[in-house]
Amino acid sequence: MAKIKRIFIANRGEIAVRIIRTCRELGIETVLGVSEANRDTLGAQLATRVVCLGPAAATQSYLKVGTVIEAAMGTGCDAIHPGYGFLSENKDLAEACAETDLIFIGPSPDNLTAVGDKLTARTHDEKAGVPLTPGGSVDTEAEALKLAEAVGFPLLIKAVSGGGGRGMKRVNSAAELPAQLNLAISEAAAAFGDGRVYLERFVTVGRHVEVQILSDGETVLHTGERDCSVQRRYQKVVEEAPAPGLPDTLRQGLLDAAVTYARHISYRSLGTVEFLVDVERQEFYFLEMNARIQVEHPVTEAITGLDLIALQIAIAEGKPLGMRQNDITLHGHAIECRLNAEDIQSDFMPSPGRIKQAWFPSLTGVRVDTHMQPGAMISPFYDSMIAKLITWGPTRADAIARMQAVLNLHTLDGVTTNAPLHSAIMADETFQQGGVDTTYLTGVLPRLTEDKT
Amino acid sequence: MAKIKRIFIANRGEIAVRIIRTCRELGIETVLGVSEANRDTLGAQLATRVVCLGPAAATQSYLKVGTVIEAAMGTGCDAIHPGYGFLSENKDLAEACAETDLIFIGPSPDNLTAVGDKLTARTHDEKAGVPLTPGGSVDTEAEALKLAEAVGFPLLIKAVSGGGGRGMKRVNSAAELPAQLNLAISEAAAAFGDGRVYLERFVTVGRHVEVQILSDGETVLHTGERDCSVQRRYQKVVEEAPAPGLPDTLRQGLLDAAVTYARHISYRSLGTVEFLVDVERQEFYFLEMNARIQVEHPVTEAITGLDLIALQIAIAEGKPLGMRQNDITLHGHAIECRLNAEDIQSDFMPSPGRIKQAWFPSLTGVRVDTHMQPGAMISPFYDSMIAKLITWGPTRADAIARMQAVLNLHTLDGVTTNAPLHSAIMADETFQQGGVDTTYLTGVLPRLTEDKT
Repeated sequence: MAKIKRIFIANRGEIAVRIIRTCRELGIETVLGVSEANRDTLGAQLATRVVCLGPAAATQSYLKVGTVIEAAMGTGCDAIHPGYGFLSENKDLAEACAETDLIFIGPSPDNLTAVGDKLTARTHDEKAGVPLTPGGSVDTEAEALKLAEAVGFPLLIKAVSGGGGRGMKRVNSAAELPAQLNLAISEAAAAFGDGRVYLERFVTVGRHVEVQILSDGETVLHTGERDCSVQRRYQKVVEEAPAPGLPDTLRQGLLDAAVTYARHISYRSLGTVEFLVDVERQEFYFLEMNARIQVEHPVTEAITGLDLIALQIAIAEGKPLGMRQNDITLHGHAIECRLNAEDIQSDFMPSPGRIKQAWFPSLTGVRVDTHMQPGAMISPFYDSMIAKLITWGPTRADAIARMQAVLNLHTLDGVTTNAPLHSAIMADETFQQGGVDTTYLTGVLPRLTEDKT
Repeated sequence: MAKIKRIFIANRGEIAVRIIRTCRELGIETVLGVSEANRDTLGAQLATRVVCLGPAAATQSYLKVGTVIEAAMGTGCDAIHPGYGFLSENKDLAEACAETDLIFIGPSPDNLTAVGDKLTARTHDEKAGVPLTPGGSVDTEAEALKLAEAVGFPLLIKAVSGGGGRGMKRVNSAAELPAQLNLAISEAAAAFGDGRVYLERFVTVGRHVEVQILSDGETVLHTGERDCSVQRRYQKVVEEAPAPGLPDTLRQGLLDAAVTYARHISYRSLGTVEFLVDVERQEFYFLEMNARIQVEHPVTEAITGLDLIALQIAIAEGKPLGMRQNDITLHGHAIECRLNAEDIQSDFMPSPGRIKQAWFPSLTGVRVDTHMQPGAMISPFYDSMIAKLITWGPTRADAIARMQAVLNLHTLDGVTTNAPLHSAIMADETFQQGGVDTTYLTGVLPRLTEDKT
């Protein structure tokens, strides 16, 4: 068992600040690897030490495995925390760590292989007896057309190495298939360096429900599920825990399947198993496993009282979880809104710029994870997420009411944000009833984003 | 009933930000009156509009009744919120408001007279049948010596117009009395423009317990008590709610006495009745009533879920409280630490300066009320309080643990603060047992502030 004393954080934004917070609590020093554009960020100011990885473009800084390894070793770190995105599920980084004395705070290279390749994941899932949506891999147009007949339309084309909705294409008919297939392959090749794709049945009324998993290699626990059905173009916008109105048998089925899957692949770390709940058939299908901390982890922390980053670090140190499933109890309801610097009136165009003033009210049941502060730059080089607003309440209605208060109260001068969209969602009767499906946001978007001025 | 649309805030620091927060929630515009030194503060950036009241010295800005009235009228405000300190209990301001169309967000001039003059307060208290510490007013040295015999030593000399511990003197024997009396009179005259003083028995082992009162003029409610016994030189350092280990009969007696007193003086607004609990005799004595929002109000908000500023505004608008005593339920335990820019190693000398970085973790059960942000100036012109750390937990131990986390995690670069003192208090066994008396902090200070470097 290795006690970690200094962690290299190979990330930026709010997750860098989030990791530093737990490291401070654990008495662990932090070295933050920053791009030239991120030298003056909040994370850089809070870290014990800062090292520049390279120019602003992520491909020249945050995504350079060799540079990250060198920077971590050169600053005497004994571990690397990759955050989410960037190199968080990069097998090369995990392997490079294994070759040195660095601890990769995440799963093993084998685990990453098992879950990172969606086709391999599907295979494992099938073997584990976890339900899958009808579909499979395709190499040629002819194969695709044949498989599509069995799967039926509409269907989805997904990148084998993809994630976060990138490289995903919906196909409504056989006529559309060839063109979309070519587009998906070339996009996947460009984005992930891997042009392999597969087809999957498109569930018309589906909910995105995912299960947070903790495994020390012996004990595999879940910390309940999260509902992330409020999406726009496969990007999560609002997340919550627990999933509202999910029938108990479905919920238990999901939780059990996630644990079964993690155990089947001998997963060791923190991770998330994502499922698509078919609302019409009252069934669920395995989507993928994310082998990293997720953006939406705070809603789970809010209802469990756990510090997931601390647990992730403890597992990486080789500590046993030291708890059982019954020790994890869920209280109340939590919601997270992803605040992005984007203009909802202009097709969600990113709105980079300098933050003049950033202020969020400190209220009971409110948590704000952000790297914003007066003077902060929203750079066009990175994603547009600038804060996560997380509210907790004894009931879902309480959590919504608190979110409305935070949305109403906060100040972010200097950039346009999607706060009006979140306010509209929170005030929307359908959302308030709970249990919306993944088409919800697209459907109500014209109404929600209507300019009332 | 007058709907308030625009409030003039005649204050600064964290309480200005706190008032703006609730005004935003209520859809009320805010005009912040600032001194020249406070133009660039967080409050000034968050307010709808800012007006300069005068130079940095409070006597030339925040304390000028005429200027405040003119500024409020000139900016079209319909009400004035005085915050705490400064003009918050100033009868002239309340009267000047009454003479114009401005609503004073506080009690009536008559109420202020009743509670502001401690001797009048004592009279009312006596009539209301609320217990008082033995004592009374004195005009001459001879009177003082005579009364002191009846009261006994040690005793306290207090300023009739004083507050917050200022102008208070402890006298241990008849020999000390004449000199201390003269000192108290001259200090009171200098500080409050009123040299009248009175004597009171000094309770050797006493706890400071206060009751939050809400009255719309018809209904008088309490929202539980707060324990503010952790004091240094009569200044509150740590506050909590409820008061730990207070016997139920004593607690109920206090709560009833506070409501009785407020009803007796026909009090209408939010206020606090302070008591001294004589631990040895298991009795309590009326200390004074504070006719304003108090620094420590967030601990009450944390255990009740109420927004006290919103209620204060609603009462000022003439709205009925619309609830009964039974509607107010208390949950869990809350603690507040006053973070001051002062050097505990140098006799608590204020440490003004510029804040390089200010960051507080956003954690479950944690609220931070502050006007700190990168670049903020801690001015020697005002009190040294720079943040209030408030933690809530299901149990007192949880609230303490969360406070330890916040103290451990936060960043305030650029000034020296009393955070190490708070950490030492939270870790102290005697404090953790609960129910310390007002001599606690002075007694353990040498040990708690011992320099371990």
